[in-house]
Amino acid sequence: MMPELNVYIGPARREQMERAVRDGGGTVVADPGAADAIVWRGDPAELEPLLSERVRWVQLPSAGVERWLASGLLDADPSRVWTSAAGAYAGIVAEHALAQLLAGFRRLPEAARATTWEGSALEGRTLRGATVAIVGAGGIGQALIALLAPFGAHVVAVTRRGEPVPGAGETLPVDRVGEVWPRADAVVLIAPATAATHHLVDAAVLAALPADAWIVNVGRGSLVDTDALVRALADGAIGGAALDVTDPEPLPDDHPLWSEPRALITPHTANPLGPRTEALAERVSENVARRREGRDLLGVVDPGRGY
Amino acid sequence: MMPELNVYIGPARREQMERAVRDGGGTVVADPGAADAIVWRGDPAELEPLLSERVRWVQLPSAGVERWLASGLLDADPSRVWTSAAGAYAGIVAEHALAQLLAGFRRLPEAARATTWEGSALEGRTLRGATVAIVGAGGIGQALIALLAPFGAHVVAVTRRGEPVPGAGETLPVDRVGEVWPRADAVVLIAPATAATHHLVDAAVLAALPADAWIVNVGRGSLVDTDALVRALADGAIGGAALDVTDPEPLPDDHPLWSEPRALITPHTANPLGPRTEALAERVSENVARRREGRDLLGVVDPGRGY
Repeated sequence: MMPELNVYIGPARREQMERAVRDGGGTVVADPGAADAIVWRGDPAELEPLLSERVRWVQLPSAGVERWLASGLLDADPSRVWTSAAGAYAGIVAEHALAQLLAGFRRLPEAARATTWEGSALEGRTLRGATVAIVGAGGIGQALIALLAPFGAHVVAVTRRGEPVPGAGETLPVDRVGEVWPRADAVVLIAPATAATHHLVDAAVLAALPADAWIVNVGRGSLVDTDALVRALADGAIGGAALDVTDPEPLPDDHPLWSEPRALITPHTANPLGPRTEALAERVSENVARRREGRDLLGVVDPGRGY
Repeated sequence: MMPELNVYIGPARREQMERAVRDGGGTVVADPGAADAIVWRGDPAELEPLLSERVRWVQLPSAGVERWLASGLLDADPSRVWTSAAGAYAGIVAEHALAQLLAGFRRLPEAARATTWEGSALEGRTLRGATVAIVGAGGIGQALIALLAPFGAHVVAVTRRGEPVPGAGETLPVDRVGEVWPRADAVVLIAPATAATHHLVDAAVLAALPADAWIVNVGRGSLVDTDALVRALADGAIGGAALDVTDPEPLPDDHPLWSEPRALITPHTANPLGPRTEALAERVSENVARRREGRDLLGVVDPGRGY
């Protein structure tokens, strides 16, 4: 018989999360003092007083854990396991990136703004045979490659070291990323914000891209030099840009990108609340089951590594 | 050695089509009198005088051949083979339908029209776990099912007789289509216009759909009762509608759908010129190779059957 696992859900109890715990075979408890594990969607400061000796595992709701590392809680008891939601949202964000890319290729932003049949008669293009550069091939990039598989696009993955990414037609190390710009029909940016990726797409890159190339950014706003992008769009130097993240973010009301016909802005909504909660519930079920069965948990945080 | 195949391309010669003929192993000839086959992109009336005894095969550019059947040319010489482009464009149109569906689910039409960050902060949804009803599962429907495979949606195919469609989670005959409406998160219409499909989506169907369901129409405008759709959108009875075909078509400038926030109109551009020409060239190459090798051609028209 598998051991009982008492799980406290906080700071608010949620029907969906309780069901997830029970689906994984856990028992939902109302008293944090009786909990072996905590599923937490609030702040570090609120959690700290609930962390009794008995609590051996904490499930966090986000993929990134920067503020949890900063809180010092993760180091307080080296034998307590912390899990993030790393990877749980990859498919949701990848789907958004593909939605943005297809919208650009099919000229849906212009169609959405049209008020007449003739005025919106714009020539679209297809992903079939197109070269799609995916910059950053972690969980989201790999999920995007999987979604792209049946479209017949040629995927060029760009990673730090260029080790072949499964499903990609080719993989380039980031120091050779310049080779892909002249032949990229689309560029999808998923890389994290680091010193090395700051303004990865700048005026020179925008000039190197084909004149009908689309840029999709679901990574971080700072990957793109926004002023250079505005000029490239105004000059018709690229096909268009679909941005879920911007620099500055939020994008100010008077920013020229709002009136650029070939720009599509989504306000950091690639991982929307409904699907995100659903995906977290699935992860909770899975990890509760794994915990009860003594198997490795998904998304275990290594404070030394930083994620 | 395989036989020579002299191919005349008309009414205008096109570099891309000449290359396609040569790629298939054929010889492009400038004189229609020397042609064994004709690749034709013009009208029936212009073609008729070029049809010498020697011409044994004609490749037509469209998937539908209604006006060719009406011309009487297809029956003039029963031993002459005619091929349409049937199936050649299925993937292109399916990709457009998926672009429209994802745009609706991710609220891209509203995002495209937004001029401020907060104003466009709309909650999207995911295809993962969604039920997608595909009404009409010919070439386009099957191509769409293939594109949808990695998204994790539950596909319900609706066909005339309900014989299981490969890749669909379930298949319903059209006389049981009513069973799918209450659980359809999205409906994609690909069926042809017939008496049986006229206003298939009417006021009763729109009332039966979930309040957040999206409708995509890449089939024919007459499949949807447009006035009922306008009312359903105004009442918030459905999530939205993405239409590549409309009734009436073209949609008049003063039509209420142009100002409906949750409508997305593309003006019959699901099969755009660039990708379409590319796909036709591929089909021409393939059929020229097959003809030379004595294999069955793709898209052979049966005048008795009507396609």
